Amino acid sequence: MMTPVFRHQDGRRGTIGTVTLDDTPFIRACRRLPVPHTPVWFMRQAGRSLPEYRRVRADIPMLEACARPDLIVEITLQPVRRYSVDAAIFFSDIMVPLKAVGVELDIQPGVGPVVGQPIRDIEGVKRLRGLEPTDVGFVTEAVRTLVGELGEIPLIGFAGAPFTLASYLVEGGPSKNHERTKALMYGRPDLWHELMDRLTDITIAFLKVQADAGASALQLFDSWVGSVAPDDYRRSVLPYSRRVLEAVGELDVPRIHFGVGTGELLGLMGEAGADVVGVDWRVPLDEAVRRVDPGKALQGNLDPAVLFAPWETVRERARDVVWRGRTAEGHVFNLGHGVLPDTDPDVLARLTDFVHEESGRL
Amino acid sequence: MMTPVFRHQDGRRGTIGTVTLDDTPFIRACRRLPVPHTPVWFMRQAGRSLPEYRRVRADIPMLEACARPDLIVEITLQPVRRYSVDAAIFFSDIMVPLKAVGVELDIQPGVGPVVGQPIRDIEGVKRLRGLEPTDVGFVTEAVRTLVGELGEIPLIGFAGAPFTLASYLVEGGPSKNHERTKALMYGRPDLWHELMDRLTDITIAFLKVQADAGASALQLFDSWVGSVAPDDYRRSVLPYSRRVLEAVGELDVPRIHFGVGTGELLGLMGEAGADVVGVDWRVPLDEAVRRVDPGKALQGNLDPAVLFAPWETVRERARDVVWRGRTAEGHVFNLGHGVLPDTDPDVLARLTDFVHEESGRL
Repeated sequence: MMTPVFRHQDGRRGTIGTVTLDDTPFIRACRRLPVPHTPVWFMRQAGRSLPEYRRVRADIPMLEACARPDLIVEITLQPVRRYSVDAAIFFSDIMVPLKAVGVELDIQPGVGPVVGQPIRDIEGVKRLRGLEPTDVGFVTEAVRTLVGELGEIPLIGFAGAPFTLASYLVEGGPSKNHERTKALMYGRPDLWHELMDRLTDITIAFLKVQADAGASALQLFDSWVGSVAPDDYRRSVLPYSRRVLEAVGELDVPRIHFGVGTGELLGLMGEAGADVVGVDWRVPLDEAVRRVDPGKALQGNLDPAVLFAPWETVRERARDVVWRGRTAEGHVFNLGHGVLPDTDPDVLARLTDFVHEESGRL
Repeated sequence: MMTPVFRHQDGRRGTIGTVTLDDTPFIRACRRLPVPHTPVWFMRQAGRSLPEYRRVRADIPMLEACARPDLIVEITLQPVRRYSVDAAIFFSDIMVPLKAVGVELDIQPGVGPVVGQPIRDIEGVKRLRGLEPTDVGFVTEAVRTLVGELGEIPLIGFAGAPFTLASYLVEGGPSKNHERTKALMYGRPDLWHELMDRLTDITIAFLKVQADAGASALQLFDSWVGSVAPDDYRRSVLPYSRRVLEAVGELDVPRIHFGVGTGELLGLMGEAGADVVGVDWRVPLDEAVRRVDPGKALQGNLDPAVLFAPWETVRERARDVVWRGRTAEGHVFNLGHGVLPDTDPDVLARLTDFVHEESGRL
């Protein structure tokens, strides 16, 4: 046994009988330790593709659901009941910490986050205050309950990364081209720094709340950073993501860092301080291994669209991901992006079992 | 003078005094010949960002505008009047040839192409007939008029590539994830082949019409192919794009091949037979040079969002693109994607002149 038992002072990751969560395949793979099978979870496993989710959410707006501990707990647990996944992902939204510090925003069905007053000047930036744990007491409560309910299954906390949060705040909503955000980043470095600095503080505080309440790992989602060229990433994004990842590194939980379309950025996202670099489906995992410096595990990367093909195809593609994943120092199986809304949950159930079997036989 | 004058039997690219279009910086750069300055054009230079375009299009639906020679000519010429660009791009839409062979479709403002009956089975595929030049007589007429009007400025014809056309037909409209298209591609190779084969024939016919009428270069747009992983591209997309590019290779006009988010595919898109590989802004041109086999020119790749930054930033970024472009055997300056709708045309005018001056001084 390479990881000591009870090494956390506050014991927040707890023990179940003699098993600590440090010994679970998911946490071990994140730490690049040997595992009995490749661990599996799915981005957006808790959400739109599950009928029981759609029932629970029926009349409840997204941000209200994200603020109710009972719903957070229920929705986080739903996929764990269906699938033999190796981790649960905390049900929330990347906009939750911004809402919690008083940003006027709504999440509109079919649209996404819409911000009342987009931030485009220094006055706007200065209105962004820091996040206190008491601003998100519902998160603490839900995480604590979940850790008890989940038992031997690790809970992944998460937050949006500063660039992606900045994009929503500057554009005022979802954006295809992020032109206002980039114009600020390219042309107003002073303002950009001030904005990113504040978002960094908020992100750190939000992740700490989750880890302090018992989350076993943290994923920093930089959903839209794939639209940024490598030089710009290095100059204008990496310093902030690094500060987040370093700050939560003190908490001694594995840190996963993921964005879509980040083939050009994988090495830099590793440099930013991730323990696990998430890879979308465009870059085969054995190629991702070449792009990321040693000392990192990888997460990914089945194309979520594959799940719409016949099972034989799903199986063949999943096997390919498992095999390529073995070239990494550690591998967490996932999709290359979130579960698509029309995905058949039964295929995800079958896929989870298949990855366990296939990797267990290797 | 390295290119012979009058070398085309039908003389369709004509001469203006003693100048043939083969001697223009744009055509020479495509052919990797020395140029007095880096040639410039902008994807979507004819379109949404110009007030005169919005006036002309005011009450006229997109597909109607694309079928009226007077409007095609006017809209294609509008940016040429404003900017000192080195090429004009034929005003059309990638859906035009599909409409011309009887596919029931509309282009809805703010949405994009919407297909009446999405194609998802062999019966649907078999309804796709070939394109005859008489189906697009308005294209022939408009190209002929334009070639006369443009004089020394080359006209670029274009078409959507088979994968991107297939995506619209299978999904029934624009799609974020292309899941139905990919499910077909991954899981129904027989049906996929039949569909792609027919789209290849249509694309070849549509490009030939434009070259036969006098277009000096052809761009094959595979807008959405960046969502496909390299192995799948090689297996399920490249053979068809290659057949298009080889077929139009007989016409002896430079062939440009472009898609967004294609960092992983640049080498393969060159292999498909392009003379010029278009690069989006995520991959610096000197890195693209390393990914594309020798014997190709590159096109690109200023981030269109840069145009929203202060002029000093635009200039610095454009200079960087010009310099990196000099590592390629030939370089056509362009944006890394289409002109964004809110772009200030005056910035494009200034940018064109700057690239000419900067590259002319080198």
